[in-house]
Amino acid sequence: MSLLVIGTVAFDAIETPFGKTDKIVGGAATFISLSASNFVKKTNIVSVVGGDFPKEAMEMLQKHNVNLEGLEIRENEKTFFWSGKYHNDMNTRDTLATELNVLETFDPKIPANYQDCDFLMLGNLAPAVQKKVINGLHKRPKLIVMDTMNFWMDIALDELKSTISMVDVLSINDEEARQLSGEYSLVKAAQKILALGPQYLIIKKGEHGALLFDKENVFFAPALPLEDVFDPTGAGDTFAGGFIGYLAETGDISFNNMKRAVIYGSAMASFCVEKFGTERLEYLTQTELEDRVSQFINLVQFDISLVDGIKV
Amino acid sequence: MSLLVIGTVAFDAIETPFGKTDKIVGGAATFISLSASNFVKKTNIVSVVGGDFPKEAMEMLQKHNVNLEGLEIRENEKTFFWSGKYHNDMNTRDTLATELNVLETFDPKIPANYQDCDFLMLGNLAPAVQKKVINGLHKRPKLIVMDTMNFWMDIALDELKSTISMVDVLSINDEEARQLSGEYSLVKAAQKILALGPQYLIIKKGEHGALLFDKENVFFAPALPLEDVFDPTGAGDTFAGGFIGYLAETGDISFNNMKRAVIYGSAMASFCVEKFGTERLEYLTQTELEDRVSQFINLVQFDISLVDGIKV
Repeated sequence: MSLLVIGTVAFDAIETPFGKTDKIVGGAATFISLSASNFVKKTNIVSVVGGDFPKEAMEMLQKHNVNLEGLEIRENEKTFFWSGKYHNDMNTRDTLATELNVLETFDPKIPANYQDCDFLMLGNLAPAVQKKVINGLHKRPKLIVMDTMNFWMDIALDELKSTISMVDVLSINDEEARQLSGEYSLVKAAQKILALGPQYLIIKKGEHGALLFDKENVFFAPALPLEDVFDPTGAGDTFAGGFIGYLAETGDISFNNMKRAVIYGSAMASFCVEKFGTERLEYLTQTELEDRVSQFINLVQFDISLVDGIKV
Repeated sequence: MSLLVIGTVAFDAIETPFGKTDKIVGGAATFISLSASNFVKKTNIVSVVGGDFPKEAMEMLQKHNVNLEGLEIRENEKTFFWSGKYHNDMNTRDTLATELNVLETFDPKIPANYQDCDFLMLGNLAPAVQKKVINGLHKRPKLIVMDTMNFWMDIALDELKSTISMVDVLSINDEEARQLSGEYSLVKAAQKILALGPQYLIIKKGEHGALLFDKENVFFAPALPLEDVFDPTGAGDTFAGGFIGYLAETGDISFNNMKRAVIYGSAMASFCVEKFGTERLEYLTQTELEDRVSQFINLVQFDISLVDGIKV
């Protein structure tokens, strides 16, 4: 089924304990669509870049079946730029620079032939922009997944809640879930957030895995224990891309299939962090993905049969 | 198979965001043996208390099939006492008081009819004391599990490493694994620690679950997401008690059975934190335990078949 992705296409400059980069290609829509390309045959993206955005990067995306018809190119402006430095634990980072550039006046336009969208992924952007995309679709998608961040909770909470009420799945990290709900317990936080409207909530815990909630169920997927996390940038978006890509291709939005989608998303994220930026995702093979998913199965599977009571 | 537990039997005074206690019964051997009692028919413990330790607490342990023949009672001395205050996140705590009392000169004596020990659990104690217990057994147990803490890494590292080299399973938390190995990555830390001698390593991550490593495999069990964590005191020992209790009763020390044992240990720990001290463990039923284990199964189980490649 058709997948539409809205989000930033950007430049990042990253510093980690393992090294630092010049400006490299990043952005939520970039990671999401590269990740989703392992599952869906075509990803339509809506985003904006400046004239400084390299043609090679666009060709790389197109090679991964990303349709750039909805990518606005403003020749005389500059691409969104973010720069950050990760601390030794890789779980915290300082933002060194944020240059909005083209993003400051981003007004997403949805090409006519994107209108048959069944699955919509709203990458992190101003909630008002995310809402505009939902309202710009003539037919409501079968599933809308939304990512956001604490920044919007600080400066646009009402607009954020209003947009959250329109989506099916919200994807945020543990600190954001605590901030949005005012609850420390993630179980309590989840129930409060689900009361805002979404049917499903994903709470990402970085190296500690991810939780999927609906009102009755909870599912947990660990992060794969890795020897080295080289660069966490884009891991959350890569997770989201694998999650919605798997759902879009299978067309099944049951809780059981979402559990599989969380595992595929986690597997994709585990690749993302192995290299700087999108590097690892650009050359990923289906065999590698399959091997990785089988590592997840081995990591968590156990056989306890409770049919006849506890067997001891 | 027979289980021998060495560790403290103590008084705790605990303060959490949910309330505070006077002196209540605690100690590693107490939590371990109460937890193990859900699996094994008899637990032999070796420990020491003062004349101030309440008869009712000893009777409560005996009701849970804990054999106190190896519990030395020094009538004119006082029981080991620890007092701590948990921070709001429940993951960190301040020690308010530590009174070693009888523990200062604890010299464990193993009763003759404890000598047929197949499974030995070394609760956290000075590594020299733990080693003395191993050397005091005429026949090496089938499995020795050892718990320890950062304190011994700070003041008795060589003795600690020497004792670690004698055991089969080491159980420590993530920060301790990092300190002991000098590696931030838990995967690298595990391999360095396994090189010290143990065949298996359990890394406990509190609310983030637990990892079981051997040289080739890794297994992950989440902690159950709970609405409230009331008091984390004893959770690690309760985990260890469920782990070794399950292994002792099944007599199977394969990696596959250790995975089940980790799940049972995690289920036991999830009860422990629901009330202050040992309260929740004292009145636990087999039905409640079975329900909890089935929650763990639901929490992590998913069905992805890779037999014919990735199904999308």
